[in-house]
Amino acid sequence: MFVTLEGPEGAGKTTLARELALRLESKGRHVLMTREPGAGTFGQTLRELLLHGDRLPPVTELLLFLTDRSHHVARIVRPALARGVVVLCDRFTDSTVVYQGYARGFDLDWLRSLNQFATAGLIPDRTLLIDLEVEIGLARVKEPDRLDAESIEFHRRVRDGFLKEASLDPNRWRILDGSQPPQAVAAEAWEAMRDLL
Amino acid sequence: MFVTLEGPEGAGKTTLARELALRLESKGRHVLMTREPGAGTFGQTLRELLLHGDRLPPVTELLLFLTDRSHHVARIVRPALARGVVVLCDRFTDSTVVYQGYARGFDLDWLRSLNQFATAGLIPDRTLLIDLEVEIGLARVKEPDRLDAESIEFHRRVRDGFLKEASLDPNRWRILDGSQPPQAVAAEAWEAMRDLL
Repeated sequence: MFVTLEGPEGAGKTTLARELALRLESKGRHVLMTREPGAGTFGQTLRELLLHGDRLPPVTELLLFLTDRSHHVARIVRPALARGVVVLCDRFTDSTVVYQGYARGFDLDWLRSLNQFATAGLIPDRTLLIDLEVEIGLARVKEPDRLDAESIEFHRRVRDGFLKEASLDPNRWRILDGSQPPQAVAAEAWEAMRDLL
Repeated sequence: MFVTLEGPEGAGKTTLARELALRLESKGRHVLMTREPGAGTFGQTLRELLLHGDRLPPVTELLLFLTDRSHHVARIVRPALARGVVVLCDRFTDSTVVYQGYARGFDLDWLRSLNQFATAGLIPDRTLLIDLEVEIGLARVKEPDRLDAESIEFHRRVRDGFLKEASLDPNRWRILDGSQPPQAVAAEAWEAMRDLL
């Protein structure tokens, strides 16, 4: 079972992943919590370049995210899925479509082709979108990285992009209300995964 | 003027680039000698991952080469060309088509699309292919990196791929006989660039 968590920084994806992992483990499931960009030592090197190095040309930024993804899928996600582990991944292909497409203006179909190539066609069984007012999300971020520092309009395009993508594939996506307390978000998420268990 | 040098390791691309740079400078031209992968500090980080780190999945290797290229073109090659500098680049888009396409089996048209995206459509004015018998090239390599260590069949596909690509666009490509002494290769290359000067 492959579940991805999407939404802006400050939405509570990490907290939610931890809570879901605890619940899954209490049901006897093995769980891998992972994230993009930056899982493993290879990914860490790329994550540093992406989020903390010099500002990159947009094409370079996109290709670096895809490089990280291709490695993450081949070396971490697919092997875990093959062993029957539940994989909870903080950000995946949809973040690329939303941040680089809706927000930065790259062609959406081209981004989908690149995602398909980088992942060899891996699609999540469920994607949980933690939706949140842009201002609330930004106010929660304590140490902004390069993406957090973008304009408010950028973050609005991100939010609208996620909601649009979710509307295109309601079987895969579930929208969670991120303005609730963490335990309430977790309860909503758990309900949204029940059919997979 | 943007000139790329292609061919196997051991063909003498670096020696030829130095000799061409000297000749161009003696004619009063400003010259930038550069290479892929690995120009600049960003590129150096990627080059280490590509050639000296753990073995990478083929898709990751390809995307990392393209990431490096996109940065190199945007930050180094295009600014130099805009200042009127002659850029001599050791390996470029054709190496991707040949090594990842002809030798590793990725689809050639897909590779051309990726190159077009990574470079925003930059095409060399002239590409000098130093052609060499596979065995002679390999025998010249003193410290083999990951690509050099591939099978002899791999290197044959590389040679055939370069010759095929050159045949598809004879206006851009010139084939040099790499079995000659370096000064003779340089003289042949100089002749092959004369119409651009």
